[in-house]
Amino acid sequence: MIGVRGTVKKIEKAPRGAEIIPTEIKILNNVQHPLPLDPTALAPADLDVRLNSRILDLRRPESQAIFRIKHRTVSAVHDFFVSNGYFEVHTPKIISSATEGGAALFPIAYYEKEAFLAQSPQLYKEQLTSAFEKVFEIGPIFRAEESHTTRHLSEVISIDMEEAFTNAEGVMKTLEEMIVYIFKIIIESCAEELTTLKRQIEVPKTPFAKYTYEDVLKELRKNKIAIKWGEDITTTTLKTLSELHRGFYFITEWPTQSKPFYIQPCENNPKVCEAFDLMHSWIEVSSGGTRVHSKNLLIKRIKEQGLEPQSFEYHIKAFEYGMPPHAGWAVGLDRLIMVITGKENIREVVLFPRDQFRLTP
Amino acid sequence: MIGVRGTVKKIEKAPRGAEIIPTEIKILNNVQHPLPLDPTALAPADLDVRLNSRILDLRRPESQAIFRIKHRTVSAVHDFFVSNGYFEVHTPKIISSATEGGAALFPIAYYEKEAFLAQSPQLYKEQLTSAFEKVFEIGPIFRAEESHTTRHLSEVISIDMEEAFTNAEGVMKTLEEMIVYIFKIIIESCAEELTTLKRQIEVPKTPFAKYTYEDVLKELRKNKIAIKWGEDITTTTLKTLSELHRGFYFITEWPTQSKPFYIQPCENNPKVCEAFDLMHSWIEVSSGGTRVHSKNLLIKRIKEQGLEPQSFEYHIKAFEYGMPPHAGWAVGLDRLIMVITGKENIREVVLFPRDQFRLTP
Repeated sequence: MIGVRGTVKKIEKAPRGAEIIPTEIKILNNVQHPLPLDPTALAPADLDVRLNSRILDLRRPESQAIFRIKHRTVSAVHDFFVSNGYFEVHTPKIISSATEGGAALFPIAYYEKEAFLAQSPQLYKEQLTSAFEKVFEIGPIFRAEESHTTRHLSEVISIDMEEAFTNAEGVMKTLEEMIVYIFKIIIESCAEELTTLKRQIEVPKTPFAKYTYEDVLKELRKNKIAIKWGEDITTTTLKTLSELHRGFYFITEWPTQSKPFYIQPCENNPKVCEAFDLMHSWIEVSSGGTRVHSKNLLIKRIKEQGLEPQSFEYHIKAFEYGMPPHAGWAVGLDRLIMVITGKENIREVVLFPRDQFRLTP
Repeated sequence: MIGVRGTVKKIEKAPRGAEIIPTEIKILNNVQHPLPLDPTALAPADLDVRLNSRILDLRRPESQAIFRIKHRTVSAVHDFFVSNGYFEVHTPKIISSATEGGAALFPIAYYEKEAFLAQSPQLYKEQLTSAFEKVFEIGPIFRAEESHTTRHLSEVISIDMEEAFTNAEGVMKTLEEMIVYIFKIIIESCAEELTTLKRQIEVPKTPFAKYTYEDVLKELRKNKIAIKWGEDITTTTLKTLSELHRGFYFITEWPTQSKPFYIQPCENNPKVCEAFDLMHSWIEVSSGGTRVHSKNLLIKRIKEQGLEPQSFEYHIKAFEYGMPPHAGWAVGLDRLIMVITGKENIREVVLFPRDQFRLTP
């Protein structure tokens, strides 16, 4: 690594249109040879090799492009929320008990007690709508995923929003607006980065297509895939679905039993609920819904999901102080970056990914 | 909790200058009586009682004012960095080994391995200057603090920056600029909140006063407080110091032995180093410095601090690929909010504080 002092001169035939006429050259630091990977290589090394020397891999033009797009996206998300009157919050990542049951938690030795890493700011953001009406948080969430897939990690950044006096329809609209806002900004300000990635994107048209869970099951049956009503739609199935649907689309009216306790069952048919997933091709980018806001229904739903109301004591209490009707969603920032950059492995778009087999660098 | 539909009419003598002439009133949710605390009370309940019912406490005008100021501060920090060309990063909170030794870490059961919660993004942000030159991160850090004080918590939000091709002097200037920028914005946009808090603040004058560690020791000796050279300045002592110095001031040229291994010793006197703390009265708001950028010196300093270079294998490797000279700092967001709002307990300015004795709500 060298430092050069000199005069910058415009030279048309120079690769970047200018050259430096040096008056002083100083060695700032030494570099070890050979490097574990060549940051200028056209054919990049295997992903694991690159992740082992990630700090060097980040100098590759492709990695630079990905993370410049990510930086710009986070800024856009921030601006979107602030300019629309949302209130930024930071909820605790160390929690005393499970947020929703089901998904595996990482246990922490917390002084003499046991605690866990938060898998979502879900319950806190819901409660906070009673104090600040419209809230958002951009922060890490932690899941002890046992499966090794191209779109799950143990630590990711979640973009969470929650809003009082609205429902699923309302926040789906906000989600569409945010996605459109981000795409416009990336297309405007990251043209060079998209070229480096050989990626062409367009501002998605709104409203996004909406299919109910029932619609999806019917469509899959036509394609000779049978899913039992109530079951989740697997990744393999989603890949079939994505051949039928390009771009962004919502799946709505999920079976109540398949979604967490805090989702509001539909009034006219409580077997399905006001939950939605936002998909892009086969990737789930976001999920959200209208939340339960009645204390009694909340306790009933907690029990129906096989959970103990005592574990949610503080959360339930918040529903005794006048909880507004509310709705919200969470977007996986890293998955959204996969969609924008066209990368098929989430590890490409996270600086230092964490999974069951990778805890370093 | 009720919903009212009707016509808003301007009425001068109404408390807020308007009244709603209702056409429809709907009960949105029930409220339990009596409430555990009165959110309109002039004399607020004890802090522990308030924190136990935090979601209700957050509706008090004073809490609303604090968190509106905090929200505005985070936005200002974000805008400051983005508009000055800093690159936003998210570094892992789950790490494989100690960041700097000394401070206590929370252990996590990470699949079959042991891992820890990051007490700082220090080493990652330093490495990232080699890929992105100027980086910042606003995120949680975790410290297993055994002491119960009014300015420490187990989980806080850290504002971290790191920059290539600069030194302590350079980043101290950036820190002054950011503080001034924040104060200007808060004074402009949070006048009502400051009034609620009965708080008057002024934009601090730059450059902030600078005292070396040596200066501080001399000054304390004059006030009959003896500190052995090399020892840290205790809180009690800082309180004496704060009677002599109002507002923001830097303490520079700390003993090398008292600071972490990654701080650059001064060239002409390696017993002291290019570290600084930014103080406001007796509160440490930030610490930072010029970092070591030579691999050999880094290994030497790690050993001198009684640590094992093997524990920092990945970090040291980053210094073999051409590490630029760099410097940076971390600001405790919550401490900065204490300074702005005049609150003397950090628990007042954190939504859901975590300490040795508090893990809920």
